[in-house]
Amino acid sequence: MGAVARVMANFGFSRLILSDPATYSFRGAERLAVKGGAVLEGMAVAQNLPEALKDCVYAVGTTSRTQIEGRVALTPEEAAARLAEHSRRGRVALVLGGEQRGLSNEELAFCSDFLVIPTSEVQPSMNLAQAAAVLLYLCSREGRGAPERAAEVAPEFQGARMGTVSALGERMREVLLRAQFLNPQAPEHVLRELERSLLRAELTQREAELWLTAFKHVGRMMGGGKGPSEQEAPSRDPRRNA
Amino acid sequence: MGAVARVMANFGFSRLILSDPATYSFRGAERLAVKGGAVLEGMAVAQNLPEALKDCVYAVGTTSRTQIEGRVALTPEEAAARLAEHSRRGRVALVLGGEQRGLSNEELAFCSDFLVIPTSEVQPSMNLAQAAAVLLYLCSREGRGAPERAAEVAPEFQGARMGTVSALGERMREVLLRAQFLNPQAPEHVLRELERSLLRAELTQREAELWLTAFKHVGRMMGGGKGPSEQEAPSRDPRRNA
Repeated sequence: MGAVARVMANFGFSRLILSDPATYSFRGAERLAVKGGAVLEGMAVAQNLPEALKDCVYAVGTTSRTQIEGRVALTPEEAAARLAEHSRRGRVALVLGGEQRGLSNEELAFCSDFLVIPTSEVQPSMNLAQAAAVLLYLCSREGRGAPERAAEVAPEFQGARMGTVSALGERMREVLLRAQFLNPQAPEHVLRELERSLLRAELTQREAELWLTAFKHVGRMMGGGKGPSEQEAPSRDPRRNA
Repeated sequence: MGAVARVMANFGFSRLILSDPATYSFRGAERLAVKGGAVLEGMAVAQNLPEALKDCVYAVGTTSRTQIEGRVALTPEEAAARLAEHSRRGRVALVLGGEQRGLSNEELAFCSDFLVIPTSEVQPSMNLAQAAAVLLYLCSREGRGAPERAAEVAPEFQGARMGTVSALGERMREVLLRAQFLNPQAPEHVLRELERSLLRAELTQREAELWLTAFKHVGRMMGGGKGPSEQEAPSRDPRRNA
């Protein structure tokens, strides 16, 4: 981890988040993080991957499998290009798995895309920090044109955060099951088609919130189940800005 | 109209539809349609523009106004490029207005985009057939790379037809008004935001039908109002292909 922090510092990246780490002992990391101390100091720890990614608009996982459940892996170059592109809409993330087991299917399903670094049969498995070095180098190469930073765009016109999109997917599942549109035995296929169509839209944060509020209202009008949370401050309703 | 048919034949276009024509007398047209006879013979007449466009996935209108209700006109070249691009997803249309009054605001609102041919102040108004010549020439220029025809894609994976998207918009309006999500005094703004996000998704016909069916089910579960039509054959339910 210290080595990862160092190579992040090498290429100008600074935000490191540990998701459900196996260990909370970071002393060894400090030794390896030569001039990567700021990265380690700023490091955050999240309970799980969805929480770690909730403020990101796009995330690429890493794995050795080129196809997972019908989804095809990106090349490292494609991933770097997409990360650069989405970084105009908001925060993006590169997700690396633990050295032992890598990312689980569920964690990869939560990522927007995933990549494979092609390696030789002689030694297919890469050291985590070295994989990070390859990928962060490619990412930094994309950045040398210095596109405008997403932070200059008003928050609601930035890309939709994955946490919001995730909440929307959950709300759609709940409402569309209750509406007897989704098949209770096998809701995933059709739900994913609808979700994927929204992902292609590259929703802004505002649009994602509008969709979420729309489904909440519809769910409430259908009766039963969850209603819009009483705890949400009225000012969170994006329609008040219309 | 005969002259339009001729220039369509010049550039390899063959499908002409008249929408709510002022006259049904076409004799004069035949004289001008030199070698454009096939176009005239195949010509169809529609009651109104939505009907004329219902099987198209994308349509560009023509006007002399560069901005209408916040929407900005395309240049002729941009329009030709977009028409070529969308023609991979399905049928596209170039919409020309009658020589006297051009297209109304409502007709332009129904088009996916609209274009302006920049002209001189000396004589800003173009003859319809000559405008058609300019635009069809630009369109034919786009086609010379001969991209694969949309007709080779299975119908449900082709782009969503405007008729279906239009029905979806109407259903969303009805359901979201009843759910008290849209403001009855001013539903348009927020509804358009949701619709525009779906347009950016470039829905396939299947996705548009799924969304439409989803909203129908939700509307029915909310009680009152329209339910899914009894007259729709069960095989129309796109979920049965899942």
